[in-house]
Amino acid sequence: MIVRIDKLQIEMPMPQEPAPEAANAVQELLGGRFGEMSTLMNYTFQSFNFRGRKKVKPYYDLIANIATEEYGHVELVAATINGMLTGAPNDDSKDGEMDPTTLPLASVLGVGNPHHFGNNGASALVSNALGQPWQGDYVFNSGDLVLDLLHNFFLESGARMGKIRVYEMTDHPIARAMLGYLLVRGGVHQVAYAKALEELTGANVTKMLNIPNISNDKFPETRQYTEQGTHRTLYRFSPDDFKDIDKVWKGPHPEDGQEVFVQDGPPEGGQAADHPEEPSVYAPGYDPDELAEIAQHMMRGS
Amino acid sequence: MIVRIDKLQIEMPMPQEPAPEAANAVQELLGGRFGEMSTLMNYTFQSFNFRGRKKVKPYYDLIANIATEEYGHVELVAATINGMLTGAPNDDSKDGEMDPTTLPLASVLGVGNPHHFGNNGASALVSNALGQPWQGDYVFNSGDLVLDLLHNFFLESGARMGKIRVYEMTDHPIARAMLGYLLVRGGVHQVAYAKALEELTGANVTKMLNIPNISNDKFPETRQYTEQGTHRTLYRFSPDDFKDIDKVWKGPHPEDGQEVFVQDGPPEGGQAADHPEEPSVYAPGYDPDELAEIAQHMMRGS
Amino acid sequence: MIVRIDKLQIEMPMPQEPAPEAANAVQELLGGRFGEMSTLMNYTFQSFNFRGRKKVKPYYDLIANIATEEYGHVELVAATINGMLTGAPNDDSKDGEMDPTTLPLASVLGVGNPHHFGNNGASALVSNALGQPWQGDYVFNSGDLVLDLLHNFFLESGARMGKIRVYEMTDHPIARAMLGYLLVRGGVHQVAYAKALEELTGANVTKMLNIPNISNDKFPETRQYTEQGTHRTLYRFSPDDFKDIDKVWKGPHPEDGQEVFVQDGPPEGGQAADHPEEPSVYAPGYDPDELAEIAQHMMRGS
Amino acid sequence: MIVRIDKLQIEMPMPQEPAPEAANAVQELLGGRFGEMSTLMNYTFQSFNFRGRKKVKPYYDLIANIATEEYGHVELVAATINGMLTGAPNDDSKDGEMDPTTLPLASVLGVGNPHHFGNNGASALVSNALGQPWQGDYVFNSGDLVLDLLHNFFLESGARMGKIRVYEMTDHPIARAMLGYLLVRGGVHQVAYAKALEELTGANVTKMLNIPNISNDKFPETRQYTEQGTHRTLYRFSPDDFKDIDKVWKGPHPEDGQEVFVQDGPPEGGQAADHPEEPSVYAPGYDPDELAEIAQHMMRGS
Amino acid sequence: MIVRIDKLQIEMPMPQEPAPEAANAVQELLGGRFGEMSTLMNYTFQSFNFRGRKKVKPYYDLIANIATEEYGHVELVAATINGMLTGAPNDDSKDGEMDPTTLPLASVLGVGNPHHFGNNGASALVSNALGQPWQGDYVFNSGDLVLDLLHNFFLESGARMGKIRVYEMTDHPIARAMLGYLLVRGGVHQVAYAKALEELTGANVTKMLNIPNISNDKFPETRQYTEQGTHRTLYRFSPDDFKDIDKVWKGPHPEDGQEVFVQDGPPEGGQAADHPEEPSVYAPGYDPDELAEIAQHMMRGS
Amino acid sequence: MIVRIDKLQIEMPMPQEPAPEAANAVQELLGGRFGEMSTLMNYTFQSFNFRGRKKVKPYYDLIANIATEEYGHVELVAATINGMLTGAPNDDSKDGEMDPTTLPLASVLGVGNPHHFGNNGASALVSNALGQPWQGDYVFNSGDLVLDLLHNFFLESGARMGKIRVYEMTDHPIARAMLGYLLVRGGVHQVAYAKALEELTGANVTKMLNIPNISNDKFPETRQYTEQGTHRTLYRFSPDDFKDIDKVWKGPHPEDGQEVFVQDGPPEGGQAADHPEEPSVYAPGYDPDELAEIAQHMMRGS
Repeated sequence: MIVRIDKLQIEMPMPQEPAPEAANAVQELLGGRFGEMSTLMNYTFQSFNFRGRKKVKPYYDLIANIATEEYGHVELVAATINGMLTGAPNDDSKDGEMDPTTLPLASVLGVGNPHHFGNNGASALVSNALGQPWQGDYVFNSGDLVLDLLHNFFLESGARMGKIRVYEMTDHPIARAMLGYLLVRGGVHQVAYAKALEELTGANVTKMLNIPNISNDKFPETRQYTEQGTHRTLYRFSPDDFKDIDKVWKGPHPEDGQEVFVQDGPPEGGQAADHPEEPSVYAPGYDPDELAEIAQHMMRGS
Repeated sequence: MIVRIDKLQIEMPMPQEPAPEAANAVQELLGGRFGEMSTLMNYTFQSFNFRGRKKVKPYYDLIANIATEEYGHVELVAATINGMLTGAPNDDSKDGEMDPTTLPLASVLGVGNPHHFGNNGASALVSNALGQPWQGDYVFNSGDLVLDLLHNFFLESGARMGKIRVYEMTDHPIARAMLGYLLVRGGVHQVAYAKALEELTGANVTKMLNIPNISNDKFPETRQYTEQGTHRTLYRFSPDDFKDIDKVWKGPHPEDGQEVFVQDGPPEGGQAADHPEEPSVYAPGYDPDELAEIAQHMMRGS
Repeated sequence: MIVRIDKLQIEMPMPQEPAPEAANAVQELLGGRFGEMSTLMNYTFQSFNFRGRKKVKPYYDLIANIATEEYGHVELVAATINGMLTGAPNDDSKDGEMDPTTLPLASVLGVGNPHHFGNNGASALVSNALGQPWQGDYVFNSGDLVLDLLHNFFLESGARMGKIRVYEMTDHPIARAMLGYLLVRGGVHQVAYAKALEELTGANVTKMLNIPNISNDKFPETRQYTEQGTHRTLYRFSPDDFKDIDKVWKGPHPEDGQEVFVQDGPPEGGQAADHPEEPSVYAPGYDPDELAEIAQHMMRGS
Repeated sequence: MIVRIDKLQIEMPMPQEPAPEAANAVQELLGGRFGEMSTLMNYTFQSFNFRGRKKVKPYYDLIANIATEEYGHVELVAATINGMLTGAPNDDSKDGEMDPTTLPLASVLGVGNPHHFGNNGASALVSNALGQPWQGDYVFNSGDLVLDLLHNFFLESGARMGKIRVYEMTDHPIARAMLGYLLVRGGVHQVAYAKALEELTGANVTKMLNIPNISNDKFPETRQYTEQGTHRTLYRFSPDDFKDIDKVWKGPHPEDGQEVFVQDGPPEGGQAADHPEEPSVYAPGYDPDELAEIAQHMMRGS
Repeated sequence: MIVRIDKLQIEMPMPQEPAPEAANAVQELLGGRFGEMSTLMNYTFQSFNFRGRKKVKPYYDLIANIATEEYGHVELVAATINGMLTGAPNDDSKDGEMDPTTLPLASVLGVGNPHHFGNNGASALVSNALGQPWQGDYVFNSGDLVLDLLHNFFLESGARMGKIRVYEMTDHPIARAMLGYLLVRGGVHQVAYAKALEELTGANVTKMLNIPNISNDKFPETRQYTEQGTHRTLYRFSPDDFKDIDKVWKGPHPEDGQEVFVQDGPPEGGQAADHPEEPSVYAPGYDPDELAEIAQHMMRGS
Repeated sequence: MIVRIDKLQIEMPMPQEPAPEAANAVQELLGGRFGEMSTLMNYTFQSFNFRGRKKVKPYYDLIANIATEEYGHVELVAATINGMLTGAPNDDSKDGEMDPTTLPLASVLGVGNPHHFGNNGASALVSNALGQPWQGDYVFNSGDLVLDLLHNFFLESGARMGKIRVYEMTDHPIARAMLGYLLVRGGVHQVAYAKALEELTGANVTKMLNIPNISNDKFPETRQYTEQGTHRTLYRFSPDDFKDIDKVWKGPHPEDGQEVFVQDGPPEGGQAADHPEEPSVYAPGYDPDELAEIAQHMMRGS
């Protein structure tokens, strides 16, 4: 089971220039075959389904622990999309009350994913950049540890490509902040699975990196993290468990040769997202003041 | 973000009678439209995407907190399926080494979901009882709070029906243990969303319960939980957040009239699942002793 | 728009021997690519979307009129499936109240489509024999009349094959009654589209029949209809419209050479289905007597 | 079974300004999860599959009757899409004969749904605004009457949101005419299911309305219908059946407190759609004059 | 089994004006229901699955032989798409090394299929113009020869419509070169299946042609092929097999009345596609010179 | 383009014991995510889409050449399924003419995939063991050569697991003959991609093999091929092209250390499949003698 800390893994800028078309491109990183839902769910189910976990505990711990981090990556990508959608409608509401005859959603007709505004409340979907839903059969879990790790190494490599491609499409500041962090963290997972395969098979898998063969150095937003050693850190996302991840996550980082290390507990993190109301899609309601009044009434316990 | 506690929400029996056909029926509760992946992902994305959350914080807190509990429900259903699949192959392996010519998987040909053994390692899939993958478009998130809560109330009602139907199909002890607990916990969520709607709309939604109109009393495995008051408890699944769930979760329980209450922190929980090796599908590997040796070598740090 | 006459197109036997596996086979005729949902929806949307309909009114009338008949075919296949599912659960209910601990659905575990009982109330799904949902892209509607008619002729030919294959799988009396009628009516539509193509292109398309090359004579249940001339009758399913179908539906029937003809109005039809309650899936409710009392109360208007 | 009256439920304006992008947005109301195909098929199959219908006849009648009305809603939305697509191609045809080298479809490249022109004949698809086909598993039919009615109430609420969102996207006169009528009729169904739940459960469900919390008053195109009492009228769409719908559809309307009532027979309705030929997609044929000549020949019976 | 000749079926122009939106329209001809993957796979599986093939060898030979040609059609359409995508990114790479901060993919954001650049390397997808994947259930194979041939005749007719519609959308020279050839070759297959049906059923199916009723004469790019008699040629795509195709492919061509004939062996063909590197998507790699060096090293065998 | 040689890659036994349930298990190897359609289509499209192919010709040649071999693997798996389905119906036909009232398909009701007999003519489907169609988005083609090769290495590893699992399910002689050959050939492709990655990255990828860690020695049916050196042979499937595959396929085989080598041309192969008629599904027709007569008539050219 899990407990939730209502913070994002980093402090995210939430400026207000809408970018609904680019937000749709970012959806690939959430619900695409190589998006964060896929990394979250692959590792989560591999950990739930792990057989003989005590015999090979460092590997179980590694997969379960990375799974836990991925939850926060999905959260970060969702926050990015929401931030990029904010303000995209033509908001002509007076006193928070939207008038449908003013065509508040005409500004997004034919732009990006029509479900962002037609079905959702200007918010992230569990789908890819084509609007196709994430699917449970994106999860691979053969039970054979080497094969599952090979899959995970491939999945992280595909995911890294996806992030780079989105980086090439948009310089929206929210997207770039997210990408800077996730390129580094995805890199950690890619190296971790490479190291796991090395131990198990004797093949020097880390020598294949980078895949794709572009260093994180090429992406300026990664630098603050590299300087802090974030690319060498594996956080242990559990109060008492997964303590044997350091049996795999050890030795030199393949790119800079410095020692990698485990840090107990999640990263410090940044503030939780606080997405503003969006009257055009009556989120959280058509009459938000009335809602707020009800809520205040409840808070006073009366 | 989350941290993970490597325990199941209850102590689960893990007896060894295989039941692969019934395990397939249980898949509906994991990956069906009304399964636990759906409750987890609906509430998780509703919380990620929530607009104006500070204005109506008790509702945000409620949805985010229930989302967090659902993770453990997915985990519990996966453990159930894995337990019911254990031992289903004809295991003729000698010294842990499987001989494919002995047809170890012939025993499951035409039984249940062929991917349980043909693709996975005798383990849970992210799909329903027909083998159809869970899909991201099972997530509903209009942004309109009342409509989303109405959806959640309906989703919990459909989920309750699904659990009852599986109960009627199998009395496998692992399945029944899981169902006893989840009928109670799902009931809590159903009541919670009903109460949330009552506060917001003034309609006495709890009067519609039970849906379906069968009391948990009819399911003997629920009784220990009802006696402990589990049906009236909302756990707060966060160290420091979601503190305003008690603004919604208060007042009498609609079935027994006793006061409902919030308990800080997750339930005590039971041991993590420890699924045995399954040589027929070489999980975790064809030569588990060699794997174990590698792992021990790693544990010694040498 | 339509009005509904609450009768089936024929008098259907509703004996009570359950046959859930065969009922699943019949699903192909409801929700398969060549099932009745496909004929209904292809012709319905072709009629809604028809351009220049006044110029070629006999063809518009033909397609729209056949579309209308197909609704009753879907209804008939659904009634068949429901009839074959009736009684499949182990009904140990006392006074109509089901006890879940008696495992009423264990009798259908691993038999047929698990959603018949796990999700639906022992009733027809909008899916095929594999449980895959009917899909809107089964509808073909190019706008080109000759191409659309060619499609329809092919669709009816595929549909006829489907019915014959199901006939070969089961002799359940409900299924056979439905098949006897629909083989004849589907044959009418196949001939009608062949005649339409003949008029438009000059090719003697009816000469291709039968497709598949098996006469309805081989199916004893068709005989009563052939003797009544049902295979030569096109019903006009409208009070005031579609009057030009007789411009296409005329001339000899390709199999017996007798003249075909139009009959105004729908067939006499038989009683509406009246499927019994099924306590195991609490259809229509867990406490049917209470429901009935509410309903009687309403009927008395008090 | 049904008979068809070849009229739309209202008199529809069919002006000729093309709006293919907005037409694609309207597709959500036809083939989306909350579109008219979903309301049609949910209620139709619930009526086909209803068990114990005589015991609770008012509810059976209500669901079957609303199902029948929905057919005309699908028809109306299809006519809307077809009207908005009319004229979108660059029609340079001379004497009705299209010259493909003039690129008649270049004007719609990258606009809206490419299948509207690439596969269909400038006409409606059975899919949503993303081009995803309507699916049979959008139908919910548990057999449990209360749960099915709760679903229907939720479905109508989601459908109402969808219509409002499309309203906010376009002020095309055809779309607005359709929306004005369907917001009113959808509202009738939402209230009807709320009243049905009230009778069965005793909970005052109508108090939850409006969902979303926006009155139809905000949409000027609804006013003529409200003034005529259309929002309080339930048409009985059958010559002889469904006579007990007045046992549910009675009492005050929740918004204006006036009495609701049943009207026997369908609405008066307006002319059937008469979509013009579209030479660019050779609908109904590449040489429409030749087609017309064949048809006239047939009409003369020669 | 097959052997591959690394040539396209015609000499293709590969000019460099990018046209990513039109390339997406061309995808329908590759992965749509009526695209070349469908013709390839329908005929291929019909040939693999053919029962009693010796008894009716000319038909087996015909289907298997046309199947073989279709492979080259898929290849041609893929080459077309790749050619139209070439150069669409903003290539600011220096010395072949791409700098992601220059936003090389911003130029394709919101244009065409986002997977062309976000997932693939500026290259063809196995999907249709909506980005929906080609699916194995597009294959129809009843086993009944007449029905399968009728399907194939219909499939070719739908495919011809699809090509014409794309022709109407774009005059990109690569697309037009491909369409000119494939309209002619698709026409051959349409006539071949018509002739096969004529022999088997006695109906004069060729009289239905053209479907759609537009002559290839209307498409200037077809003329060179018609003048060479390509529309009357069936190539025998096998060194030693399928020799009885001339039992079906004989007699007059329905459009010009000239004799059709079989030519042994594949067409002469044109050069294989040689798509240039695309640094923005690091195809074939981020550092192509390093790759080339490795390859040269290998070529020297050192 | 390709030419087809109407032979299977090996001589296949075609005994007549039906095994429809096991045939369904074999479908996973045809249309599953890791089946032969996936290997065929991944490598085929990677070769069609390859950018800069001349610069890194050995890799282009390798992928294109393996793609060509895979066609014959699909063919072999289809022949296997067809062989295992032969005779499964209750054939009571007299003189080849089937009587539907004898229920010839009752013997397969509820066994395996209902579409094998209900839709197809006792023949292979383009779908997996769950009846889910093969999908075009199983194709991965990033354009980045290292990433695509890593994918291919993973795909072959997943494919090998799939074959082993089916081996464990059935000892049907047709299935075993196919598996013996394809385990060896799949192994060749796995090693080939490993060698390709080694050259490009310097990592000793072959050291990871076997994946799964089970030697082909454990499968007796592979031995004849290993003894002949088939596991070390890469056939060059082209008359004149792909000549640089020997730049990659060279050096020792990782399992036995013997030198690998290229053989020009396809393997000798065995007879084409000759599946018997199946009257129950009227394949190739309901009256096969009439069909044969027509064919003979054609053969005589009269």
